[in-house]
Amino acid sequence: MGTTQLESVPEPKYWHLKTVLSEALDSEFSVGEILPNERDLAARFGVARATLRQALEQLELEGRLQRRRGVGTTVAPPRVGVAVGTEQHAWPGAAGDAWQPVDCEQTIPPAVVAAALDSGADEPVHVVRRSRMSHGQRVATELLYIPAASVPGLTAIDAPSGPARARAVLRELQHLSQESQDRSVELGSARADDAKDLDRLPGSPVLVVTTRFAAEGRTAVLSVATYRADTCRLTFGDSTGVEIHHDPERQAS
Amino acid sequence: MGTTQLESVPEPKYWHLKTVLSEALDSEFSVGEILPNERDLAARFGVARATLRQALEQLELEGRLQRRRGVGTTVAPPRVGVAVGTEQHAWPGAAGDAWQPVDCEQTIPPAVVAAALDSGADEPVHVVRRSRMSHGQRVATELLYIPAASVPGLTAIDAPSGPARARAVLRELQHLSQESQDRSVELGSARADDAKDLDRLPGSPVLVVTTRFAAEGRTAVLSVATYRADTCRLTFGDSTGVEIHHDPERQAS
Repeated sequence: MGTTQLESVPEPKYWHLKTVLSEALDSEFSVGEILPNERDLAARFGVARATLRQALEQLELEGRLQRRRGVGTTVAPPRVGVAVGTEQHAWPGAAGDAWQPVDCEQTIPPAVVAAALDSGADEPVHVVRRSRMSHGQRVATELLYIPAASVPGLTAIDAPSGPARARAVLRELQHLSQESQDRSVELGSARADDAKDLDRLPGSPVLVVTTRFAAEGRTAVLSVATYRADTCRLTFGDSTGVEIHHDPERQAS
Repeated sequence: MGTTQLESVPEPKYWHLKTVLSEALDSEFSVGEILPNERDLAARFGVARATLRQALEQLELEGRLQRRRGVGTTVAPPRVGVAVGTEQHAWPGAAGDAWQPVDCEQTIPPAVVAAALDSGADEPVHVVRRSRMSHGQRVATELLYIPAASVPGLTAIDAPSGPARARAVLRELQHLSQESQDRSVELGSARADDAKDLDRLPGSPVLVVTTRFAAEGRTAVLSVATYRADTCRLTFGDSTGVEIHHDPERQAS
C-alpha cells in the first residue's frame, strides 16, 4: 500500500537494505543455505557493518533468517504453525495432548503466580515442566503451576519427582470439572534454561502463552508456555490454520 | 525453578545484569520515570556500555522498559490486555467492533495474499485500513483484504475512498454468512508506515495477527493486524483475561 505514505516517512538505511536483502534471499538462496560472512555481505551491498547487522536482525525477527550456534546465519524455512488451545474444556495431560511431561517438583511459586492462583504466598505448588515437539523440532517449553487443592487425591505413594510424578499429577487433574480457559500471548525473552531447552541463545525473542484454567470458581492451573518466536506461528480457531507463511505486509512494498 | 538447572547453563554477563537491573526497577523506579543515561548506568553497575545495552534490550523485549523518541528510556507500565477475536461469527465492522476505519482503496494485493484469497494474481481487491485504540493509546493497525466477490452489492455510488468507503465495504460484508475464522499470531517487525501509526521506530518488534474469515467455502476476508509488542498482551478466551502482568517465569530466578 501507498508508496506515497512510505515516502512521507523517513526510512532508515537498514530498512531499505532489509528489503533488498529479502529479495536476494528469495531469488538467490535456498532454505538452509548459509549466508556469506558479514564482511563480504557489507562489501557487496556497499553498506557499513553496523547497518548490515541491523538489517539481519530485522530479517531474523521476521523469521526469514536463523542465527545458529556454531553454524552461522542460515535462510530459515517457513514458520511452522503450532495449534494453541484447541479443545475448549480439556485439561493439560488429557488424551491427545501435544505436550510431553519432563519433570515435576513441589516448590513455592513466584509471587505473581501465587497471586494468580489465589494460593498463599508461602504455599508450595506442584510445578510440572513439559516440552512440545513439532515437525521433529522442540518448539516450546512449559511450566504448569498446580496448587495442591486442585489434585486432592494425589498420594505420596506416587513417584516423588520426574516424568512419572508429572503424569500422576496430571492424571489427578482430570477429575476436576473445568469452567473456563483464559489465554494471553505476549512477547518475551528466553530465560537461560528455556533457551537451552529450545536450542536458542539466552534472551532470544519468544512468544509467551499464559493460560489460566478455572474450576470451582478459582484458578485450578496456571500454564506458562514459551514458544520459539523464530520458527513458530501460533494458530487459533476452528479449522486447520492460516496458510500464510510470512507476513504479507512485508511483501507489499 | 532450580538454581541447579541454571548453574549448568553458561549465563552471559548481560543476563545477570538484566536480573539486577530488573530488581532495581522494582525497588527504585516508578512507572514513567526516565532512566539515567547509559554512561552513568554502566558506571554504577561496573559493566561495559555494550553489556548494558544488551541488558536494556532484553528488558525492552519483556515490556519492562520503553525507548521513546526524544524522551529516552522510561520504566514501562504493565502491558495492556487487548482482546483478540472474541465474537466467533462476527465480521469486521459488526456492532461493537473495537476497530476504527481509516481508509479504503482498491489495489492488487501481494502475491501471498492473493493466494490465500484464491483470487487471481492480478485481480484488485478492496483494502481497508483500520486502527485500534486501547486505554487512550493506539495499540494496533490493520489491513483487511476483501475480494470484490465478498461484497457483490457494493455500488460505485458510494464514496470512492477514505473512511466512508471503508464503512460501505464493511456494511456490505455483513450480508455474507460466516462459516469459520482461523487465526495465527507471530512475531514481526514494524514496517515504516505501521511504525509511524503506532508511534514506534521502524523495525520495532510487533505481534502480527493474521485472520482468515471463510464464507461459501472460500476465504471471504483476510485480516493482517499489527499490534505493538511492547505495550500489548493479546488475550483470547471466554472471560476477562489473564491477570498476570509480566511473565512470571522472569521472576522465578
